[in-house]
Amino acid sequence: MTLPRLGKYIPVLDWGRSYDRTAFGNDMVAAIIVTIMLIPQSLAYALLAGLPPEAGLYASIVPIILYAIFGTSRALAVGPVAVVSLMTAAAIGNVAEAGTMGYAVAALTLAALSGAILLAMGVFKLGFLANFLSHPVIAGFITASGILIATSQIRHILGVDAGGHNLWEMVTSLVAHLPQTNPMTLLIGGLATLFLFWVRKGLKPALRKIGIGPRLADVVTKAGPVAAVMVTTFAVWQFHLADGGVKIVGDVPQSLPPLTMPDFSVGLVSDLLVPAILISVIGFVESISVAQTLAAKRRQRINPDQELIGLGAANIGAAFTGGYPVTGGFARSVVNFDAGAQTPAAGAFTAIGLAIAAIALTPLVYFLPKATLAATIIVAVLSLVDFSILKTSWQYSKADFVAVLATILLTLGFGVEVGVTSGVVLSIGLFLYKTSRPHIAEVGLVPSTQHFRNIKRHKVITDPSILTIRIDESLYFANARFLEDYIFDRVVGDDRLRHVILMCSAINEIDLSALESLEAINHRLDEMCIALHLSEVKGPVMDRLKCAHFLDDLTGRVFLSQYDAMRELLGKLSVSDAIDTNDNSSAKTG
Amino acid sequence: MTLPRLGKYIPVLDWGRSYDRTAFGNDMVAAIIVTIMLIPQSLAYALLAGLPPEAGLYASIVPIILYAIFGTSRALAVGPVAVVSLMTAAAIGNVAEAGTMGYAVAALTLAALSGAILLAMGVFKLGFLANFLSHPVIAGFITASGILIATSQIRHILGVDAGGHNLWEMVTSLVAHLPQTNPMTLLIGGLATLFLFWVRKGLKPALRKIGIGPRLADVVTKAGPVAAVMVTTFAVWQFHLADGGVKIVGDVPQSLPPLTMPDFSVGLVSDLLVPAILISVIGFVESISVAQTLAAKRRQRINPDQELIGLGAANIGAAFTGGYPVTGGFARSVVNFDAGAQTPAAGAFTAIGLAIAAIALTPLVYFLPKATLAATIIVAVLSLVDFSILKTSWQYSKADFVAVLATILLTLGFGVEVGVTSGVVLSIGLFLYKTSRPHIAEVGLVPSTQHFRNIKRHKVITDPSILTIRIDESLYFANARFLEDYIFDRVVGDDRLRHVILMCSAINEIDLSALESLEAINHRLDEMCIALHLSEVKGPVMDRLKCAHFLDDLTGRVFLSQYDAMRELLGKLSVSDAIDTNDNSSAKTG
Repeated sequence: MTLPRLGKYIPVLDWGRSYDRTAFGNDMVAAIIVTIMLIPQSLAYALLAGLPPEAGLYASIVPIILYAIFGTSRALAVGPVAVVSLMTAAAIGNVAEAGTMGYAVAALTLAALSGAILLAMGVFKLGFLANFLSHPVIAGFITASGILIATSQIRHILGVDAGGHNLWEMVTSLVAHLPQTNPMTLLIGGLATLFLFWVRKGLKPALRKIGIGPRLADVVTKAGPVAAVMVTTFAVWQFHLADGGVKIVGDVPQSLPPLTMPDFSVGLVSDLLVPAILISVIGFVESISVAQTLAAKRRQRINPDQELIGLGAANIGAAFTGGYPVTGGFARSVVNFDAGAQTPAAGAFTAIGLAIAAIALTPLVYFLPKATLAATIIVAVLSLVDFSILKTSWQYSKADFVAVLATILLTLGFGVEVGVTSGVVLSIGLFLYKTSRPHIAEVGLVPSTQHFRNIKRHKVITDPSILTIRIDESLYFANARFLEDYIFDRVVGDDRLRHVILMCSAINEIDLSALESLEAINHRLDEMCIALHLSEVKGPVMDRLKCAHFLDDLTGRVFLSQYDAMRELLGKLSVSDAIDTNDNSSAKTG
Repeated sequence: MTLPRLGKYIPVLDWGRSYDRTAFGNDMVAAIIVTIMLIPQSLAYALLAGLPPEAGLYASIVPIILYAIFGTSRALAVGPVAVVSLMTAAAIGNVAEAGTMGYAVAALTLAALSGAILLAMGVFKLGFLANFLSHPVIAGFITASGILIATSQIRHILGVDAGGHNLWEMVTSLVAHLPQTNPMTLLIGGLATLFLFWVRKGLKPALRKIGIGPRLADVVTKAGPVAAVMVTTFAVWQFHLADGGVKIVGDVPQSLPPLTMPDFSVGLVSDLLVPAILISVIGFVESISVAQTLAAKRRQRINPDQELIGLGAANIGAAFTGGYPVTGGFARSVVNFDAGAQTPAAGAFTAIGLAIAAIALTPLVYFLPKATLAATIIVAVLSLVDFSILKTSWQYSKADFVAVLATILLTLGFGVEVGVTSGVVLSIGLFLYKTSRPHIAEVGLVPSTQHFRNIKRHKVITDPSILTIRIDESLYFANARFLEDYIFDRVVGDDRLRHVILMCSAINEIDLSALESLEAINHRLDEMCIALHLSEVKGPVMDRLKCAHFLDDLTGRVFLSQYDAMRELLGKLSVSDAIDTNDNSSAKTG
């Protein structure tokens, strides 16, 4: 195996060789900015996943380094993200009690399983499977997850012990716990939320107004959560608010990521396998969307199958170093990109920054109120909530709308796993349903061209002895009988008919079931003294038909073009059999 | 609601009004022949289902009458059939011990659930769902079921107590029990099997040779099992073979079908729901295939949704009269048809014949050896076994072959439910996989026509400034990204390119995900100063595109035909930009 070939699987060998001082400088600046942003975010997402805060830091260190070695995106920042953290909480909440040792170990197992699944998908080039998550389903899922996540954090803002696994349970539990609200927690949480919203919406314009450059304004804006963390931590410490019931982060071990061992017992693995598959696929889709968007901006390409390997390695890294499932995050990657990261080395420098934080800064977050972390989560995820997909899909395609609406409602009502699975199954089901009842058009010749179009939409030339049918779908088992029924319903009672031409320009495949239907159609038309012809059969379909007896038994012929078919069949008929001009161009059906 | 409208839902009101003496005579003859055939068959299939023999008779009486009222086929004979009996045994074998009261009640519940599912499918017009069982999957499933059924009956021929839920278990259990073989049972069973095979293969030619007419020869042949039953029953009675260990049918109650009540407890219903769905769908597919074949022979039509209602009523009837799941059987229907049945009244007369048998003839089968019934089953089902589908599908389509092979192997290895479910899931999965990686062809103008074909297969005219791509598939979420990647891989580095035309003749739908991909393609081509055009967009697709912004943002135009597109775009270019003639007609890829 030569080095370039190895470089295909370990991209660091490619970009590493041309790494220079400029790249180093750019990467370093990006790393510092991302590190500052990631410290509170990592702690917050660990809280969302139900894990101790340090798990979020650990999940950002070794995984980032492994992704830098194996991943192909130059700007993707890997670590804990909101949706995957929520899915982690949902998955391991079923097998262990939050806060127990078993819970943390289950998180490691989940990361290991996700990593193994991602690696396997990469090695077997199964990245295309992610395409079965349609854009609308993803959009609906992300929106619903954002709502679920924000709702789940309200309890930290109120300082109450509410719970729930879906929106309804969460809201009723919150309402029931409302009387126990801790006023000081609410004050801190409320102010932090308002502050962070203002930072996101109003700070940047304000900074620009007072003459600060756009780049610096951006950096200051991203540091907003750090400011909130510092101020509220100081306030809690100074005014002894923890004694008044304000929940704080408390002791966080001062340590590099520990070496940990996931539990691979059969029972736990089988409980976590399906969630791990869902987390892998969702994580991959989120990550690759970000990576492709950023790569396109710099005219770079990323390799989806290699991305799977990079993310797989990152998750396996998380499993053995005290983390939990990770993926490429949207916000952090965009910050990394905007801050000028040039190579994956920026990620490695970020990892070093976070490692320093894990050793040196953890005592400083002892008094950090959980309400502040909850506020950073709420403000971050509400930017994901976007109902415009409902309007777009309603206008464009009712099938897509149904898939989106179902995904949103089922995610809110039954949780992330049910929601996303239903969305995928439903969108596939709707696609299959549509292909099982294809659009079929009768076509005629557009005058003074050789082009054939629907007789209901265009002014075309037809002949009473010839019926030309264009089936707008590949023929396969699910619609084979539909075509049979359509043709017989149309043909029965039309005594002038001598030829049926199937115009096959839209038929991309004929499977064995459909071939049997075509044989039946040919046979039954023959009994009615009607010949069956084919036109515009595509190369790959024709190759296949030549493997079967069908063409030998066909009562009519196969024409290269529909125009040839019409010309030859009409030539054979008496000329007095005049051509009808069908003027239905105003009709809009069909 | 007027009478003709009611007649749509209760077909008996239509054909009943024109019922005359000729029809009565024909129906009566058919009924007598079918009754003679059904008596041993009903007893045998009950044995296969693990139920007492009378259950088979009961399942043939009321269901036939209900189907005669609600069904649309003139010749379909409804009752117990081999595959559904096997599926019944598999389903209720999981919830109760064969021979117990609970087992028989579970069979009633299964019939009631199947009936309700079939009725619901009929009312909601879901008959199309059966189309998702592809022909090859059905063929593979029937073949594998035939093997399983025949193997399951060998124990009765040997007179041993072997068991097993799949082929492997059955064979090993039979081998283990071989030493306990009862010689007399084996003699009876072996002779009966040989006799029945001879009747099926050799008797009819022999009868024709000695001058007997074809119709009578047929009837005599169908009575073969009755002869085997009579001879072996007499032998067992005369020579007291039951004392020597030959297992006999024993006491069968002399009674009309009893009124029975299925058990609708939640636990049982939830255990039997999935098997009931599978039995409903498989039974419906078997029944409708027979009904359509027979209807086509007399140029009649059957209504699939009304058939669901007919079969649903029949199963509900079976549930409340001591039966078990029923459907339209192939063998009995063909016999009914060949014997001249003209209306569903033939079925009603058959029911009367079987009712008389249930009251009067049941004492006569006391000494009937189970080995004889097993022989009738084996000979009947081995005619279902047909491996030619493996060869046909291998030659025609590897995807179909994989689906067939998997269905056969999984049915044999894991039973009927796993087998048929896997077959359906796999064939849908393979279809989705194919559509997710569509065939894409670059096309050019076939000289002296207006027709465009693949540049790799035909000698066509192209121009270096224009790339025309024909995508041979509808664009939807699963292949949207594939198209994006294809276009960019093709376009990058081709500096002479100014126009990309998507020829949409094979695009039958563009969903929202694909629309977003098209927008991305349009945008990125624009950045490379390449215009994107569409040609031959079909009416329904165009209607949809007009609901979105895409057409406003499109950098190029939408042409009615690909020929118009080429002419107009070339007209705009300098004439010196000569047309290339691409001669690749010998190439066979693409």
